[in-house]
Amino acid sequence: MVVKVYGPHCASTKRVLVCLVEKEIEFEVVPVDVTKGEHKKPEYLKLQPFGVVPVIQDGDYTLYESRAIMRYYAEKYRSEGVELLGRTAEERGVVEQWLEVEAHNFNPPAYDLAVHVLFGPLLGITPDPKVAEESEAKLVKVLDIYEERLSKSKYLGGDFFSLADISHLPFTDYIVNKMNKGYLIKDRKHVSDWWDDISSRPSWKKVIELYQPPI
Amino acid sequence: MVVKVYGPHCASTKRVLVCLVEKEIEFEVVPVDVTKGEHKKPEYLKLQPFGVVPVIQDGDYTLYESRAIMRYYAEKYRSEGVELLGRTAEERGVVEQWLEVEAHNFNPPAYDLAVHVLFGPLLGITPDPKVAEESEAKLVKVLDIYEERLSKSKYLGGDFFSLADISHLPFTDYIVNKMNKGYLIKDRKHVSDWWDDISSRPSWKKVIELYQPPI
Repeated sequence: MVVKVYGPHCASTKRVLVCLVEKEIEFEVVPVDVTKGEHKKPEYLKLQPFGVVPVIQDGDYTLYESRAIMRYYAEKYRSEGVELLGRTAEERGVVEQWLEVEAHNFNPPAYDLAVHVLFGPLLGITPDPKVAEESEAKLVKVLDIYEERLSKSKYLGGDFFSLADISHLPFTDYIVNKMNKGYLIKDRKHVSDWWDDISSRPSWKKVIELYQPPI
Repeated sequence: MVVKVYGPHCASTKRVLVCLVEKEIEFEVVPVDVTKGEHKKPEYLKLQPFGVVPVIQDGDYTLYESRAIMRYYAEKYRSEGVELLGRTAEERGVVEQWLEVEAHNFNPPAYDLAVHVLFGPLLGITPDPKVAEESEAKLVKVLDIYEERLSKSKYLGGDFFSLADISHLPFTDYIVNKMNKGYLIKDRKHVSDWWDDISSRPSWKKVIELYQPPI
């Protein structure tokens, strides 16, 4: 059964796509043009009632929320492709911790920064330089803590690449390659080395080459 | 080994405590007075660099982020106490989906509502009625989707109580019992039945009785 992934050009969907590539799971994509509001149309809301991407369909199994979908595939196919959850409950605990840090500490300011520097107008939001500035200041504090973490551990979840790292790829890519704010990463030695490592993985290169974001 | 749980009086810590009670895991609590800024002191930041509660210490294993801690114990002690993750990868996938929905759709407006109606002054935040109103409007939309979900499924994750339900307890309790906004729950038949069910579990009653929130 080939997994159908909706909304491949959006940032959060890319988490799922990288995970599927790392786990060597076949997939096909279904474009959802969020700039045309396709994620708010009735047929899409039947799949994802909150009107956001991504959703996957795997036979008659439908699942949404990018981090939940990643966990599902990483767990279901543990022995296939790259192990992305750690080998023990303790290792997985730390991976889960950094997945949560990504979701609650890194992603909100990174998303707000992207909206107010980059793609606000595409979503009908007027960019506000004050929000951009505040978001960048929050991100600076978060990345200082990442620098400390990554000075002691090669990856966020431990000495192995995991879902916690994958989850950071799309918005760090926006920061470095679309917003001209690469200094946030490059000025921190360990964060910079980590970014060079995870962004040079064939899985990420493949996903970013196939499904360029809309901006 | 008894698990040490920091910050038992805070809402997000209560997720962890309910999970430990359901899994029949012994714990002791370490108070962290957030109204006095104890969560920003250097000794606490060594445990939790972002300066939020909770943290657990289990021997020499330290973990933070309430939803990550819940997952760790639910996974490590699967065969003890109540099964909180579902029996199959597919069931767990749906539990994870609703844990993510709680974190990204329910909790942000519920938290903002609580801050701007209830405990802003305790945290040094001036309540803003406009933010309260907007948060409530967001919550209404989210709870309408919950009503639809719970009309088809006894619990959020499926026909079984899970981490997805636990994760909603602390802030729904604020809504119903501290903010005088019980109508948000009671006006929706299936959400109301679900709330009556999960909030009458002995685990929640024990936690709320032992560790009343600071307001």
